[in-house]
Amino acid sequence: MMNVICNSLQRLRQSQPLILNITNLVTMDFIANGLLALGASPIMTQAEEELEALVRLSSCVVINLGTLNAPFLSLANQACALANQYHKPLVLDPVGAGATPYRTQAALTLMKQHQFQIIRANASEIAAISGADVMTKGVDSAIQTHEAIDAAQSLAYASHTVLCVSGETDYIVDASRLETCHHGSPLMPKVTGTGCLLSAVVAAFHAVEPDPFQAAFIATYYYALCGEQAAKQAHAPGHFKPYFIDALSELMEA
Amino acid sequence: MMNVICNSLQRLRQSQPLILNITNLVTMDFIANGLLALGASPIMTQAEEELEALVRLSSCVVINLGTLNAPFLSLANQACALANQYHKPLVLDPVGAGATPYRTQAALTLMKQHQFQIIRANASEIAAISGADVMTKGVDSAIQTHEAIDAAQSLAYASHTVLCVSGETDYIVDASRLETCHHGSPLMPKVTGTGCLLSAVVAAFHAVEPDPFQAAFIATYYYALCGEQAAKQAHAPGHFKPYFIDALSELMEA
Amino acid sequence: MMNVICNSLQRLRQSQPLILNITNLVTMDFIANGLLALGASPIMTQAEEELEALVRLSSCVVINLGTLNAPFLSLANQACALANQYHKPLVLDPVGAGATPYRTQAALTLMKQHQFQIIRANASEIAAISGADVMTKGVDSAIQTHEAIDAAQSLAYASHTVLCVSGETDYIVDASRLETCHHGSPLMPKVTGTGCLLSAVVAAFHAVEPDPFQAAFIATYYYALCGEQAAKQAHAPGHFKPYFIDALSELMEA
Repeated sequence: MMNVICNSLQRLRQSQPLILNITNLVTMDFIANGLLALGASPIMTQAEEELEALVRLSSCVVINLGTLNAPFLSLANQACALANQYHKPLVLDPVGAGATPYRTQAALTLMKQHQFQIIRANASEIAAISGADVMTKGVDSAIQTHEAIDAAQSLAYASHTVLCVSGETDYIVDASRLETCHHGSPLMPKVTGTGCLLSAVVAAFHAVEPDPFQAAFIATYYYALCGEQAAKQAHAPGHFKPYFIDALSELMEA
Repeated sequence: MMNVICNSLQRLRQSQPLILNITNLVTMDFIANGLLALGASPIMTQAEEELEALVRLSSCVVINLGTLNAPFLSLANQACALANQYHKPLVLDPVGAGATPYRTQAALTLMKQHQFQIIRANASEIAAISGADVMTKGVDSAIQTHEAIDAAQSLAYASHTVLCVSGETDYIVDASRLETCHHGSPLMPKVTGTGCLLSAVVAAFHAVEPDPFQAAFIATYYYALCGEQAAKQAHAPGHFKPYFIDALSELMEA
Repeated sequence: MMNVICNSLQRLRQSQPLILNITNLVTMDFIANGLLALGASPIMTQAEEELEALVRLSSCVVINLGTLNAPFLSLANQACALANQYHKPLVLDPVGAGATPYRTQAALTLMKQHQFQIIRANASEIAAISGADVMTKGVDSAIQTHEAIDAAQSLAYASHTVLCVSGETDYIVDASRLETCHHGSPLMPKVTGTGCLLSAVVAAFHAVEPDPFQAAFIATYYYALCGEQAAKQAHAPGHFKPYFIDALSELMEA
């Protein structure tokens, strides 16, 4: 596994893929810094006027619903259409699906109208967008990841999408495959945006790994190892964050 | 005092109250990370469509005027009405009141139309919303906190609100009570959003302390101790920030 | 040079100039923290209703196009007009000019309608707004700074503006002068917003240095030294950031 990750990482850092983020207002800085540390090139936009140019320039497009509203969804909808049109991979992070009907519905509408290659979310969010009757507490998951495997597999089959279920144990699921990652640190959910950044990191790996299942698995695995590395050096979330960014930049560099 | 804080903290970390932040664009990341470190669960929104669902889910609602404009005020106004309707405590942070008439007026209009349980601000801002003729320089205070005590007491009496006046010395004031906190660090105002985050921390403590005066006092005191703890380990604002987040997560944990 | 910088810094920290930032959503927190660490006083706004009051209070106005859209450009346009009217220096950061025609056009329109004292950008962006046919990859430069000197000089001459071209080597250019700065660190472009913050730091120095060329040179030089200082203590971007903020606060303090 380490060789596979190293190989992907090397190509990622060489090609510095441009990742277009249509994303939330809270964790933009963390996403941008994480992608830069990893070796990718982040760009954010708020303007329909430049969407086509940016989608064409980018290697992958990430839609993150963290602070959605009507203008945001209009922008996201156009970005998805353009990504599908120009055959750029699309990653969805349905932040807070299940917490409010508005978020669940927004995710479902985007999924119905566009083809996503990968959806990355926590267990509650996956359950919500698969139609399971689960309560999400705000943007944090209320259930364990293993409870969402069946939902993820059904959804992966029905939507031709790779599902990446993040939590203490991570599951990568498509219509026929299942991979598991037991790495990571309990400090990761104590830093805001670790889920958002993982979605962007998945996109960055997908820029160099054509198989979305493989890309999601490699990204999740590397990200979890970076979390473990940071947790060796920090015991609380304030210092975990800079160590984690450092790990994204340095782990397996040698 | 330490026992009281420990007891509140323990209940806060156990219940992980959801704090809904209708807040500014500059310090969202810091607020979210600070609340997570403390043990609360932050959520931000930009959408009227999900306001009612989020207010009902949340334990407390914070309105922060740091980057207000017309759409923001419309959202804030609806959030306040819903918070009052569902009996969820409301905390106001009138960032920059006194710096521009627009900010002062926005704060006064919200205060007139809705019942806030706690208003947390610096001395200039408190003076401005109490009608005193004071000049605020941008978002930083131009006067000392003790100069705003009379204004705070009059306002607390007239508006049935707890006033939390932050500065080198902090004052917590209601119609009949006054508490003082002499802790903290001069590095706190050198990190952007330490005021904003305190408002959110006050809200988090109010989720487990029904008396808003007691909640504001405990929160202010704990926050100031975290500032002192961080200042023991950092001498400049860059490193003060991660130590401060760590302190919010660890101080009095044992 | 060190004496000149020290002298400027001292006056900056004494006067704590208010810097009004009409800026992007990604790096607001970093800009605010960097300005505070330096000794300036940052303010951000999203509201036309308070623009005139804020422009009048501020010492310098920075326009940063990082996440531009139509409402943002309307706000920026008004801020520029007010800055010119009240004789407040204007600094432009044309983030991503050259990456999309929308960004290039927005920068050119603002430059045509308003008088900027300083434009700070990377080489690709400078080339783009000077009409050179250069490709920008997202928000990172695709060419070296020395390749943009001719473009910068022509533009400086035509627009009566100081051009600050940032990269491995920095060039400060006006119609008749050219200064070079060879300091800095390769870690600086690995932290999102180091360009944005430099534009704001240039504005802060311009608040105490009436000559925009001198202000841009001193700011660039000091900023690069802070980068070197941080790079002595950190080897990766996660830790570089807090050391860099500390350097902005402490370097040449004694």
